[in-house]
Amino acid sequence: MNSIDKVKGTFERRAREKKAQPSAATVHRLPRYHRYLAALLGEGILRISSSELAKRMHVTASQIRQDLSCFGDFGQQGYGYNVKYLFRKVGDLLGANAGYRAVVVGVGNMGHALLSSRMFVRRGVHCMAAFDRDPKLIGSTVGEIPVYDAAELERYCRAENITLAILTLPADAAPAVAERLCEAGVRGILNFSDVELPRSLPATVQNIHLDDSLMVLCYKVGCADREETDE
Amino acid sequence: MNSIDKVKGTFERRAREKKAQPSAATVHRLPRYHRYLAALLGEGILRISSSELAKRMHVTASQIRQDLSCFGDFGQQGYGYNVKYLFRKVGDLLGANAGYRAVVVGVGNMGHALLSSRMFVRRGVHCMAAFDRDPKLIGSTVGEIPVYDAAELERYCRAENITLAILTLPADAAPAVAERLCEAGVRGILNFSDVELPRSLPATVQNIHLDDSLMVLCYKVGCADREETDE
Repeated sequence: MNSIDKVKGTFERRAREKKAQPSAATVHRLPRYHRYLAALLGEGILRISSSELAKRMHVTASQIRQDLSCFGDFGQQGYGYNVKYLFRKVGDLLGANAGYRAVVVGVGNMGHALLSSRMFVRRGVHCMAAFDRDPKLIGSTVGEIPVYDAAELERYCRAENITLAILTLPADAAPAVAERLCEAGVRGILNFSDVELPRSLPATVQNIHLDDSLMVLCYKVGCADREETDE
Repeated sequence: MNSIDKVKGTFERRAREKKAQPSAATVHRLPRYHRYLAALLGEGILRISSSELAKRMHVTASQIRQDLSCFGDFGQQGYGYNVKYLFRKVGDLLGANAGYRAVVVGVGNMGHALLSSRMFVRRGVHCMAAFDRDPKLIGSTVGEIPVYDAAELERYCRAENITLAILTLPADAAPAVAERLCEAGVRGILNFSDVELPRSLPATVQNIHLDDSLMVLCYKVGCADREETDE
């Protein structure tokens, strides 16, 4: 390979890598594609045009082409998208096919709700166990998932190579448990505890504040009311 | 008022109105301000500079000034923000002080989790009642909130002037119940049911897909892994 080819190769690789990096906005939209593609497969639909998919998802076809083009060329002109292939590719990109193992810490109402849901199965995450301090819960199962003593948390996470933890603990207990999880090798935390975890944690944290969504709804309802009054 | 003053007045009013309309991104950030301001009040802190608030919230001071300036001038140079006043103003804008009345439909695990939380109280929403079809639940209370027969839903919402509904129903039941709620005057729906509600509904809908957040977490953990491998 001569030096011009080498430089050209580097540029092309960089261009591909740049293309392969979807924007934060696209990343937040991708799980929705994953859901819709799963639903299409469930209906036995193996091929779909961007305009048909756009109609189902209530977005524009150009938005879809843009979102999906940024990590590869899945669509074929006049043929549409291969649903199975696209579902797998979106899943690969999101980590749905990475086989991550997870635990749920805190088996209160929210813990029960998540353990009983199909959330983990649907997104390719292996929920291995749940943990609580309550002797009445320890030894029980929720949706076939065993509940263990919270004292066993670190030992279990290390032994079972746990990557993700879902925290559904009271706010005051959450930060210390999050630190214990990180020390035991957990790299991602979905945090339902009503507190934002310290930024110093080495893990990636997604804080879920359900009442923030309630507030946004209140805001939008208020706006709709004001528009009606103006008319 | 002469015609020039009139035109000038109209321009000024329009400028104010334009200023009063925060961007969608700001609106999604405002509930977080509301949380932090509530925490400050809880600590007895009545005055805070944008740089101090920025440090607590892990955002830049200029982001804060920009977010808060778009709906009025709350800060005073050299004095900082009046926390109580700002909390009230952000709450006013978001609808936390509008006294909206809400019902929860579906008292499964997620319904229990929301009814037992302080979500409604904290955000100024009056959660009046919950509804379910299960005879074992009807007549009980969850976190002091009474559970009524789902058959009573429309009558109750009309009689009690209910604005908001939180749906924690199975996916197949949710769309029909959402329509019944709209007919009974409900104008905002926070939807935890694992289905997107039809766009034709006259109400404002916020769909919550918890497993979308799980997917975004998986994506970020995967990115962090790739970065480490590259190093």
